[in-house]
Parts: sequence; structure tokens; C-alpha cells
Amino acid sequence: MQIEAVGVCGSDTAYFTVGRIGDWIVDGPIILGHECAGKVIAVGSDVTQVAVGDRVAIEPGTPCRDCRDCMAGRYHLCPDLVFFATPPYDGSLVQRMAIDERQLFRMPDSMSYEEGALCEPLSVGIWACRRAGLEPGDRVLVTGAGPVGLLAAQAARAFGANSVTVTDIADFRLDMARELGFDVERVGEGTSRDFDVLLECSGAPTALADGLWRLRTNGRAAMVGMPKQDVALALSRLNVNELTIGLVNRYAHTWPIAIELISSGRVDVSSLVTHRFPLDETADAIMLARNVPDSVKAIIAPQQRSA
Amino acid sequence: MQIEAVGVCGSDTAYFTVGRIGDWIVDGPIILGHECAGKVIAVGSDVTQVAVGDRVAIEPGTPCRDCRDCMAGRYHLCPDLVFFATPPYDGSLVQRMAIDERQLFRMPDSMSYEEGALCEPLSVGIWACRRAGLEPGDRVLVTGAGPVGLLAAQAARAFGANSVTVTDIADFRLDMARELGFDVERVGEGTSRDFDVLLECSGAPTALADGLWRLRTNGRAAMVGMPKQDVALALSRLNVNELTIGLVNRYAHTWPIAIELISSGRVDVSSLVTHRFPLDETADAIMLARNVPDSVKAIIAPQQRSA
Amino acid sequence: MQIEAVGVCGSDTAYFTVGRIGDWIVDGPIILGHECAGKVIAVGSDVTQVAVGDRVAIEPGTPCRDCRDCMAGRYHLCPDLVFFATPPYDGSLVQRMAIDERQLFRMPDSMSYEEGALCEPLSVGIWACRRAGLEPGDRVLVTGAGPVGLLAAQAARAFGANSVTVTDIADFRLDMARELGFDVERVGEGTSRDFDVLLECSGAPTALADGLWRLRTNGRAAMVGMPKQDVALALSRLNVNELTIGLVNRYAHTWPIAIELISSGRVDVSSLVTHRFPLDETADAIMLARNVPDSVKAIIAPQQRSA
Amino acid sequence: MQIEAVGVCGSDTAYFTVGRIGDWIVDGPIILGHECAGKVIAVGSDVTQVAVGDRVAIEPGTPCRDCRDCMAGRYHLCPDLVFFATPPYDGSLVQRMAIDERQLFRMPDSMSYEEGALCEPLSVGIWACRRAGLEPGDRVLVTGAGPVGLLAAQAARAFGANSVTVTDIADFRLDMARELGFDVERVGEGTSRDFDVLLECSGAPTALADGLWRLRTNGRAAMVGMPKQDVALALSRLNVNELTIGLVNRYAHTWPIAIELISSGRVDVSSLVTHRFPLDETADAIMLARNVPDSVKAIIAPQQRSA
Repeated sequence: MQIEAVGVCGSDTAYFTVGRIGDWIVDGPIILGHECAGKVIAVGSDVTQVAVGDRVAIEPGTPCRDCRDCMAGRYHLCPDLVFFATPPYDGSLVQRMAIDERQLFRMPDSMSYEEGALCEPLSVGIWACRRAGLEPGDRVLVTGAGPVGLLAAQAARAFGANSVTVTDIADFRLDMARELGFDVERVGEGTSRDFDVLLECSGAPTALADGLWRLRTNGRAAMVGMPKQDVALALSRLNVNELTIGLVNRYAHTWPIAIELISSGRVDVSSLVTHRFPLDETADAIMLARNVPDSVKAIIAPQQRSA
Repeated sequence: MQIEAVGVCGSDTAYFTVGRIGDWIVDGPIILGHECAGKVIAVGSDVTQVAVGDRVAIEPGTPCRDCRDCMAGRYHLCPDLVFFATPPYDGSLVQRMAIDERQLFRMPDSMSYEEGALCEPLSVGIWACRRAGLEPGDRVLVTGAGPVGLLAAQAARAFGANSVTVTDIADFRLDMARELGFDVERVGEGTSRDFDVLLECSGAPTALADGLWRLRTNGRAAMVGMPKQDVALALSRLNVNELTIGLVNRYAHTWPIAIELISSGRVDVSSLVTHRFPLDETADAIMLARNVPDSVKAIIAPQQRSA
Repeated sequence: MQIEAVGVCGSDTAYFTVGRIGDWIVDGPIILGHECAGKVIAVGSDVTQVAVGDRVAIEPGTPCRDCRDCMAGRYHLCPDLVFFATPPYDGSLVQRMAIDERQLFRMPDSMSYEEGALCEPLSVGIWACRRAGLEPGDRVLVTGAGPVGLLAAQAARAFGANSVTVTDIADFRLDMARELGFDVERVGEGTSRDFDVLLECSGAPTALADGLWRLRTNGRAAMVGMPKQDVALALSRLNVNELTIGLVNRYAHTWPIAIELISSGRVDVSSLVTHRFPLDETADAIMLARNVPDSVKAIIAPQQRSA
Repeated sequence: MQIEAVGVCGSDTAYFTVGRIGDWIVDGPIILGHECAGKVIAVGSDVTQVAVGDRVAIEPGTPCRDCRDCMAGRYHLCPDLVFFATPPYDGSLVQRMAIDERQLFRMPDSMSYEEGALCEPLSVGIWACRRAGLEPGDRVLVTGAGPVGLLAAQAARAFGANSVTVTDIADFRLDMARELGFDVERVGEGTSRDFDVLLECSGAPTALADGLWRLRTNGRAAMVGMPKQDVALALSRLNVNELTIGLVNRYAHTWPIAIELISSGRVDVSSLVTHRFPLDETADAIMLARNVPDSVKAIIAPQQRSA
């Protein structure tokens, strides 16, 4: 596989700067990067699903395909999952690597490698909708207008949400949400309590509690953002509306639909790419979110060098 | 309706002693009691479903039958629900009262009034199973062996749970759980992490967090107990197993199945009745749980007087 | 209510020509029409949800709001449902009529009355998706490119279907499906067997059996078309793929989402309107489908007269 | 594996007598038998889940664990499934055979091998409940009181059905159903139309149509019986109640719950065993159902010889 595009995720930045996320600790050299797409440049003798020259979006997890969770349709919860750029496993921020064909999904010619790489964060958004039990007609609140929030919002709309409201604290991101067609709110300004679904994508410590408060009866929430500290919930007040909270750990079975949503134009991932970098500026790419407030998604082109 | 049996609930005790539960405040005289059964002694001219002499279990909530929630099948979340013994509405700890026939469910002769009254807490247990998405074959952990916990555990077994483990801090309650056929654990002693479902029925502040930790992948929890303070959850660690948490606000559509479970012997509610009181000893009944550690459920007989 | 637009449905044509549909028999004068929208021109003293001047789409069924089905969230299956233009009840092909405010749904100014009227057949399509258990990512086969088929196809796409293929026998309808962006097939020419969902909207006697044959494992079908004779199914061969077949009886809770889908442009109902008639040409409108092969949907304007 | 008990299934009889079931054709010698349990008498070096001496119930299907269906949690629909005694694969009516440890489920000492073997038909009954979307509180109609019908009925009760009614044409089987605690009806005599769930287990050509007619609104059916000819359904009359029909192809993930249901006494499989045979009387065992009307289930003991 020749890797053509790699998106930078907040987890890459965390491993690069503090060397850990929760219980995952970097204790030696590691290759980062797990949002990726590329071109098949060679295949093994048993490969049947892809051929040399195929342009593919890449799913970054390799499940065992044999355990209880794999056999139950939940391969993403496989205890032996090997996942790109999650210690101790290397990622895909390289020029060439070998990947199991079952993690490769052919893209139509109309899709760019950049779009292929962003199937990964879109998958998080798709799965958030599923974990929230989103149904056509729901009114959706998305807290956090970073890449995942903006993609979750678009997935919700593509799955028939009646309305989608996006909140953030940054003008730049709210503007981007508005341009994508969403209602927007600055955090703390909205007061309506008539949402059916909350997709928490900010990781802000109080975002879940605040968002749950705005759900109406039978409201459902998916918790995508990952606050470092404990989250305090006033369950004895929230129970009146009989809410349901779904925690989220990545995704499963999402690449085919992600490719279809992007290639049909129902989801716009390209607008999120605010910055692009050649391979030798990887450190700048990874630090972009920390250094440049008006940024959303950085893409690294492993086959390119700065002029 | 001639009321023949009234169970005492923790909410009755709370209103009697501190006069409030969360936002529900007793600010004048109120009749307590909402777990009840009785005999029809007169009917209005439009009544068609029950007749004089019928022995009935009584559902204590009166929904508007017209709002969005009622029409969506969620009458228990009706914003205009009138519920026995929830301020400002009076309860059923009386000798006679008028009740809408749609809240009356005929019992077979084999069922006692006491059993009829306990359809109410059993309904909480039934609904907890539903809110947890319990499926046949699940391994279930019930935290709290009070009346609701013991009934939720029995409901889980009656719905096909593969195993049910009950935890508590009190020997008396653990013994009762053991006699009902459940595996038991003293709080803090269990360490296995292979449960599919958690039914939190203790209201202890840390019970939800501790119980969630013991669920395996795709675990589901229903939060029945109501801790007064906020609950702190380490969501960023719990998300690995992709848990789902369902909050609970009473029940809906449960009386027919509660009657069937009791009358068929699949659920034993009578064993939970540790103490019985005539009407004039109501205060003792209501204070029982506070005064007598080795107690589970008190039943008041409104038609009886102490000798 | 001043009725501004009324769509003609196949049931109107059936009652007009043969006077019956199955067990529903017209045995006296009846007003036809149930796909309608209009303007509020007067309100009763208790009305709170709409005001004079409001432009509204109209749901044509009045449930009892009290029975088992209504309380279970299935008001469309209410045994006492009063439905426009279903004997013995009159319909809405009139200039003015009184309607319960709970059946009125305000439309944004951007929506025409014609579009409002077509919320009804769109509701059938929306409900078909639901009865088929459509999930985002599904590959969908729609058999029959009449109004309901074309709207079901659009609903499926709006709810995240990965692909939608529409079949019919008529070039005119296949062309319309193609212009709406769908893959099309002439009946009998398609052979692929990789669909997840079948929406049978033709009523052709063999369409269900043929369509089920084209579903893959875990395939789901909704049966919207109503063949007059019995349908023969080779269940012992179809069972290999463990299919699920959902029968369909109208819809429930669909108007808010229908309005949103139309007003957001996600569903195009106007393209389906091939013919328009003033009130005095109602008979021509009702006979259109029989007399003009290249037609899809006729709309009658009750406030207009022919020149 | 030393096979200790093998139940005879109707499919064994069909292969033995006419040599085919639908598209599965016996075209050479084949070993029959797929309902089985046994004792582990040797293990390979990689085996970790079972040990020599373990008594196990055996799941007779070997999925590929790699295809789309396997990874989606539907291994029973795996196109490469190898299944005991389904041509061209041999079955388990032998004294010793090698079996993948992942198809072995340890039984408690309290369970007999006979009971272990009957985990297989019980699995069909468990899966039928699931395919019918059975929910606690449902009223269930089971058509056909053969082994599968009687086990499906018991599974339905164990999963919280409010009532279970079993129909058949044979007194012997109706008596057995009655002794197991079910309401019984001779086919054609029942007229009530208030069932929520139909489990069709007879394979009689008109049983599905007749049974569907007796479901109330939102009724759900699972089609387990396999009529040889096409089934004619009056869908345009059945659609009024918005029924759902689930076809059934064996089962998945059922052995742990089957073992628990049997060992806890919630399901009685032993009562169904009307006849027992040593290995050398296998032909009599297989022909039992044809030759002895008052029979239900035959068990062959491969380790025994007739005196």
C-alpha cells in the first residue's frame, strides 16, 4: 500500500506531546497516524478483493475475527484488536506499508485520497448516530464543532434528522458549522430543551451534563468526546425524561456507508480540511490544533516533500 | 374502590419525614400510598371493563392520553401525569376512593390483595429490565436487595436471564436474595467483570460507577436507584466496553405482565412482605424501614384496625 | 379549514369506479380525497396550536386516543380510526371543512399547498422504510415507480440508504425515477441478489415473491402494494436468507418529518405532479391514472374553476 | 469426542427416506445426526476451552468466522457453513469424532447427555422467539406440538410470555403440551384473535396463513415449519394489523442459554423423549416418527448395543 493521505487526529497530538491517552502509554518509538487512504501497489498471492492500482480508503483496526465480540458483530470491541497508532502498534504515517485486504475499501474515482482518509473520523460520527439510536425525524444537538462534531452532524442529517444544532465556543468553528448548513449556538447561549438526540463531541467536562439537560423525554445521547476527569451527572433529575446514554468506542462496519455518503455528496468532508502538509512537516501538522486556533483538520501527504 | 392493601414505598417515608423528594415538595396535607389493590364496590354508568365485586390491582398514574408522549406510547412521561401520593396529588392510603377504570386490572382469585399491591414495585423491576435492554441469556447484576432490587432480579430471571447476582450490604437482605434463588455478593466483595446487564436499585452514590465497571462489552445498565447527589462516572474508561445507560422513570404497560408473573408463580412477591399493619398503625409502617433494619416491605391493610 | 390542494390516490379511483376496496364498500354518497393541505380560516375557542391564516398539511386520520393501540403509540391501528374518504367517512375533496387541530401541521412559507398535500403519500413511503427496518447503509430495491414507490425511494435515500434501485414496467415512470437520481431496472431484467431492503410498492401479484428472492441474508421487506389476490411465497427457499417481511397499514407520527424532508429539499414531491385540475374537473383527475398512461400524480385545486 | 446421545430430527428421516430436502440432495453415503452431546476423550495441543473428561453439548455448525455474515454476528447464515448431516457433510451419529472446541459447551453435572443433545432443537425454539421479536408479556400461539413446537413454547414461557397456546391435530401431542402446562387447542377449533406472537412449527401448508389471521395489531410471526409447497397469504387482508413475518434458518449464539434453561429446570426437554434406541437400532429410531404416531423424540445412544 502506498499511503497518499493521512489525517491528523487529536490522539496523534496527545501521543506526540504527552505520550499517553488514559491507559495507552507510548514507551518507545511509535509511528502515528490512523486516518488514511492510499493506492494498492502490490498484492499477495491470496488477495482477491483488491488489485494493483486500486485506490482505497483504509480501516485502521485489525480484529481477531474469532472471539466472542468478533462473532457477535462487534469486532471493534475485540480484546485483541490491533489498531494503527495505538501503543504498542505503529500507525500509517509512512510511505508504504502492508495491510490486510479486508481493511481496504475501494473508492470511486470521484473521491480524493483526502476524502478517503476522512472516512475514519466520519466513521466516528456515523457510529455516534447509531449509538445514540438516532431515528429519522429526530432533532439533534451536537456539542463541539471540531472534525468529529462536524462529521457527526452531517451523518445525522444524512440519516434523516429533522434538525441539527451545533454548539462550540469558537467563532471559526461555528462559522464552519453554519456554512455546512447547521443551526449554531455558542456554548451556554442555547436554552431550548426539545432535542431528541445529543452527540457529545467536545470532550468538555460539563458538556455531557449540560447537553443531557436539553433533551426531552426519551432523549438519547452518544458520548464521543473524552473528558480526562470524571463526569458528574445529576441522574436523579435527568431520570425524569428517561434518557439513554450510549458510550462510544470507535465504530464497526462503517466504511462502505462512509464512502457512499462522501461520494454521493451527502457529506462534505473536504471543507473541514483547513491545512495540508508534506511529509517533512509532520510535526507542524500534528501541532496545528494547538498552535493555530482557526484550524479544523490537517492532512499530511506522505508522498510529498516541502519545496 | 375499597382499598384492601397498600405497600409502603421509600418515597412515602421520604415525604413523611423530610417532606420532599427532589423538586416534589409537600406543602400541605397529603394522603400517601401508591402501591395498592382493592375491590370494586361501585361503578359509574359508563364503566365497562370492571364490575362490582372485581378484585383489582391498581396502576397509580393517570395520564392525559392526548399529548405527544401519551400518543407515542410513553404515557408514564406525560407532563400532566397525575400520580398517587406525588405532591400535590393525594394517594391511596384510604378506605375508599374513585379511580378511572383504565387503571384497574382484574386479578385471578389465586392472587391476594397484597400481591396485587406489589404489582407496583414489580412494575419498576420489569421496566428496569426493559430500560436495560435485557435479553434472554444475559448475565445480570442487581445492586441493592431492597424490594425493588429483589423484584427486578426476579423479573430478569423470568425474562430469561442466564444468571442473576444480587449485592447488598445487609445480611438480612442477602439471605432473602439467596432464598429466592439468586447468587449473592456483599458490596465490595465481587470482582468478576463479565455481566451483561446492571440493574442499579440501591441508590448508593457509587453503586452505578462500581456496577458499570463490572459490565463487559456491550453492557447495559438501568439506573433505578436515586442518589441525592451527583453521580461521578469515569466515562473515558467505561467507554472501552461501549456501555449503554438507561435512566428510569417508573414504568408503562406493565400491569398485565406483573399480574401474570405473580399468578403463575414465576415471581414471588409475598416473601418480601416482612411486616403487616392495620390502618391505625400507618406511621409505624411508614417508619419501618428506618426503625427495623431486618425489614423489606411493609403492607398496610386499610380495612383493618389494631385489636 | 379552506382546502387548497387535494392529491388523487389510487384508492379514490377504486372507490369511484368499482365502489370498494376489499372490505370497505361505498354504499351511499361519499366525498373522496384524503391527500390534502389548506389554510386555517377559523378556529374554535379551545384551539391553541394553529391560528387563522396558518398554512397547514393535514393528516387524514382521527384516532380515539384512548384504546390499547393508541396508548401503545400505534394510533394508526386504532380500531375506531376515522379516516378521510374511507367508507363510511367523507374525505376532504371540498372547499371548506372542520378538522381537529391535532391533525394540522404548519408548513414553512417555502412549501406549496401541493407539497403539503403530498405529505400523505410521502408518509406512506416514510413508514414503509420504518416497517422494513431500513438502516443507514442499506441497499434498497423499490418495486413500482408510482407515486408511493418514488416517494418511498426518496425517503430511503434521505434516511441514509447506500443505494436505491427502482423497478417498473413503464418507460415514463422509469425515466422519472432516473431523473430523481435512482438506478432503474425494467421489471424482470434485474438479476442481482444483493439488496438489504425491499419496498414493494407496485401491488403486482408476483412482485413480493420476486423481490424477496433478490434480498441477501438478513434482508427485510415492507409490503406496501396491495395485490387483490393471495400472494404465493416459496418460504422454504426464502428462509435460507432469514428474511423479515413487514406488512404496512398507512403510517403514524410522520407529518413533522415529511414536512422537514420536503422543505429542506431532501425529498422532491413536486416533480411527481404531472397533472393539475380545477374542482369541476375532479372526475377527470380521478380517472387520470386509468386514461393517461404517462401520468404519475394528479392534484385538484378545490378553490379553482376551469376557465 | 465420544458421542453419547444423538436426537433424531425430521431432516434425518427425510434424508433417510427420500434423500433430499429442497436443494440439499444426498448423492452418496452420508452419516446422519446433528442433535448431539458427548464426552471429550482427547484434545489437540491448541485446545484451551475444554479438557479430557468434559461433558459437552455440541453445536453442529462450523462457520468460516471471516465472511460478511460471520463478522456481522450472523454466523448461521455463513455461505460456507459446514453443518452436520447436511449434504455433502457427515453428521455425528458415530461413536467418536473430532470437533472444533468452539462448538463445544460444557454442561453441569446435573444435565444428562440426552438433555445436552436436545440443546439443538431447543436452540431452534429459542431462535424462533427471537425472530418473532417476542417480548415479555406477549400472548403466544405455537402451531405444531412436535419437538420444536414444544420447545419453542417452553422458550417463549421462559422469556416472559404472558400465555402460550399450543395447537396440533394429534391427541398424544396435545396431551404432552397440556402436561407441560400450556393451553392447548385442536387445529381448527380455536377462534380467538388476540395473540401477539405466532411460532409456526408444524410445516402444515395452511398453518402460517391461519395463524397470522389470529394475531392482533403489531403481531409478529416466526416461520419455523417448512412446507414443501408455496404458501399462499392474503396479505391485503393481513396488512390491516401490520403484522411482521420472520423467516427462520436455524439459530446463532444459543447454546449457553439453552444449557442454562435446561439445567435450571426452566425448560423440560426430557419429557419429550418418548423412545430410546441403541446404535444398532438406528433405522428404527429414524423411522419412529413415521411408524409410531404416539411418539415425539427419539434418542440414539451410540455407545450402546441392543441386548
